[in-house]
Amino acid sequence: MILNDIYEKVTPPIIRDFKNIVGSSYVFDDHESLYKYGRDETENLYYQPEIVVKPRTTEEISAILKICNHHKIPLTARGAGTGLSGGALPKCGGVVLSLERMNSILHIDEKNFQVTTEPGVITEILQNEVKAKGLFYPPDPSSRGSCFIGGNIAENSGGPKAVKYGVVKDYVLNLEVVLPNGEVMWTGANVLKNATGYNLTQLIVGSEGTLAIVTKIVLKLIPHPKYDLLLLAPFSSLEKAGEAVNAIFLAGHNPSAMELVEIDALQIVSEMVSAGSIPVHEGVAAHLIIEVDGNDQDILLKEMESINHILEEMGAGEIFFADDAVQKEALWKLRRRTAEAVKLKGYTIEEDTVVPRAALPDLIRGVKELGIAHRFHAVCYGHAGDGNLHIRIKKEGIINSYQNPEMQQILCALFKLVKSLGGTISGEHGIGLIQKPYMHLVFNEAALNIMRSIKKSFDPNNILNPGKIFDYE
Amino acid sequence: MILNDIYEKVTPPIIRDFKNIVGSSYVFDDHESLYKYGRDETENLYYQPEIVVKPRTTEEISAILKICNHHKIPLTARGAGTGLSGGALPKCGGVVLSLERMNSILHIDEKNFQVTTEPGVITEILQNEVKAKGLFYPPDPSSRGSCFIGGNIAENSGGPKAVKYGVVKDYVLNLEVVLPNGEVMWTGANVLKNATGYNLTQLIVGSEGTLAIVTKIVLKLIPHPKYDLLLLAPFSSLEKAGEAVNAIFLAGHNPSAMELVEIDALQIVSEMVSAGSIPVHEGVAAHLIIEVDGNDQDILLKEMESINHILEEMGAGEIFFADDAVQKEALWKLRRRTAEAVKLKGYTIEEDTVVPRAALPDLIRGVKELGIAHRFHAVCYGHAGDGNLHIRIKKEGIINSYQNPEMQQILCALFKLVKSLGGTISGEHGIGLIQKPYMHLVFNEAALNIMRSIKKSFDPNNILNPGKIFDYE
Repeated sequence: MILNDIYEKVTPPIIRDFKNIVGSSYVFDDHESLYKYGRDETENLYYQPEIVVKPRTTEEISAILKICNHHKIPLTARGAGTGLSGGALPKCGGVVLSLERMNSILHIDEKNFQVTTEPGVITEILQNEVKAKGLFYPPDPSSRGSCFIGGNIAENSGGPKAVKYGVVKDYVLNLEVVLPNGEVMWTGANVLKNATGYNLTQLIVGSEGTLAIVTKIVLKLIPHPKYDLLLLAPFSSLEKAGEAVNAIFLAGHNPSAMELVEIDALQIVSEMVSAGSIPVHEGVAAHLIIEVDGNDQDILLKEMESINHILEEMGAGEIFFADDAVQKEALWKLRRRTAEAVKLKGYTIEEDTVVPRAALPDLIRGVKELGIAHRFHAVCYGHAGDGNLHIRIKKEGIINSYQNPEMQQILCALFKLVKSLGGTISGEHGIGLIQKPYMHLVFNEAALNIMRSIKKSFDPNNILNPGKIFDYE
Repeated sequence: MILNDIYEKVTPPIIRDFKNIVGSSYVFDDHESLYKYGRDETENLYYQPEIVVKPRTTEEISAILKICNHHKIPLTARGAGTGLSGGALPKCGGVVLSLERMNSILHIDEKNFQVTTEPGVITEILQNEVKAKGLFYPPDPSSRGSCFIGGNIAENSGGPKAVKYGVVKDYVLNLEVVLPNGEVMWTGANVLKNATGYNLTQLIVGSEGTLAIVTKIVLKLIPHPKYDLLLLAPFSSLEKAGEAVNAIFLAGHNPSAMELVEIDALQIVSEMVSAGSIPVHEGVAAHLIIEVDGNDQDILLKEMESINHILEEMGAGEIFFADDAVQKEALWKLRRRTAEAVKLKGYTIEEDTVVPRAALPDLIRGVKELGIAHRFHAVCYGHAGDGNLHIRIKKEGIINSYQNPEMQQILCALFKLVKSLGGTISGEHGIGLIQKPYMHLVFNEAALNIMRSIKKSFDPNNILNPGKIFDYE
């Protein structure tokens, strides 16, 4: 690979330097570590790092980066390794910088509804800690029980609540970052409105560790809603379900979740997790999972009634209302573990398409047609409320999907469809390695050149997470 | 001035080229035009352009930029000229590119809650057009009756609704822009979630016309709330008012406006506009204007009752409820025209500070102390709900405030105070010319260098709105 030629190797003196910085017990080059930190949750990808370093402080990271920048050694930051686009894999070798020890929540500012945290905190732990103060951090990817908040920032994660509450970028007020040359800076201020210079905060969010290493994060919080209601509505066709989604928004409702799960996916995941009393009927093609939340139960009941009415008008089957916390939990578990279950069934490749919401039925129809033309089977599920559809593909005989020319052709056709519907190739997983070959389908050369040039501004030696998002030259 | 030396002048052949591109009736070099387009709403600033060009299409703008880039002629985009930081003034001469003819709303997508518009549409017209379809575009600066949506994008404007609904950046999904070299690109896609490459959309928003010229704008809309309620609560001290603001949020309320107006400002503006039946009592130091909105009147009444209760507990005087549309309009007119009225009274300089909300009482106290120490008088008003305080300063004998060393010292002290409270120097007006000397107080050199380097990525010849936000070298 051409890129690797421009880099130097991690030599014993450099390893000694790293050990001096973070302590020798936090530098790893044993086989087990190298193997573990060369993988994430993306299908069949493996890139072995030369060394794994686990710093504890911003200053340590600054010192490590100075060394890497001086010696032109690639460095790839890693959160919990739950990514689905290969974003944390050290494609060019070098250092994997694991943020796992930077796992303190530094300050919950109850007066200003803000939290300052280190990047290595597990998202669900952060959510629970602020919830204990009556506060709410809404973005919750399916992996929230294991993923890190820093990784969520890197990929601009979403989750089911995004439809009402927005994604990670909508909650990030300010970031402390270390630049590739070791300089430390804050990107903004801890304020709700900011028109002071370029929005560096938003440039870092979603930049997948290619511009700077995030070391402190200031998030906006909101008061936690007191109540929520949840239902499951079956439909005899995917298109009908998609049309029901539109009808609910056109009626002025603002659900806190609006998820779509195709019946194939639901059946697969039902086998894996105990679905409790959740019914799966014959003749059903897809389910919508709809949640409303707020501070007044009467209002929520009225809203659910109205949504129920719309669903019936749009041809839903028997609607199941989750009656208590146990049923709600069971229903959410079904949804959250869908990707994992479907993957285990051989649907190896997960796409993260997003289109304007009303185009969802067209997208689903198009995916099925592509499946017939290219002889693959696809299951669809995802965040119907914001047009973010995950598509898992199974094609007999193909294992390493991303390297397979036939699969590449399929993905190309899929993304052209998405683009023609006004959408784009990733809603919440990021580009990383696996979507990189398709960026030119949604951005013209001028836009890609601007991105490359921004990368060069931050990282002239291209040491940070090289080989991701776009080709550098 | 050093910067001007690097630029070429607009020569007669170049003027001929411009006339060929946009038509000779849309190129102006008469005195009246040059005078008009050399000013905005910022105090006493005047920079004369060499020529004013009014294109109608993206292609025309691309052709103009190619010429300017080739000849190194500065070009400054201009909306309605309502800016308060000198952002649209041609500091280095050259071309003023007025977007006033690009004033079409291109498409209201009722199914997806989106609008695609050109930049020269007046914000209020856009709001009214989408409202007619039941949709809501919340950001509404005081100047919404005259400012352009393109200018709002350039400065990342806010307004009273920001406390509940966010600012401009929270509604921009996608932008068509022309780069300084004339290349045209889209920054993103028309989708609610996007993790596809760097967030160029958010980088352009608030970049004050220094990176690219925005030619098409895709905005997210939301369903228009059906009802709103409005009250005015007097307080005997500014600090008490600030504390009441905090108490309301801590109780879990989510008002759609939470404005603070100091009594001096209220009295000044009351003289200017007919205040109708709105009472101004003795012994009052500040008023809060509080609005709640939603789709259920009973809920809103309950919420207002609860807020009323908190206000009374926090020592508010007699609370005035706007009973009907006429009273609401009168109250909002008071608030919206405050800046203008105060300016006419000789409070020439308007600052746009923003701090974490709970620090507002400290900021107000600090401003008053600075006033005593430096012998100036300040009136405060603004968006208390998001900590965005406008401070208008009057100091006898000072006219051109921004060039005055004494005033510069005062502003330096003010911004240091703001920074010490966790805030920054502009919440919604932008940096432009007048805040530029203070950027180093809130950003370190590493951050400023990154901004400079991003500027260079987009605009290597520094032709777009030069001399704004930061010094280039």
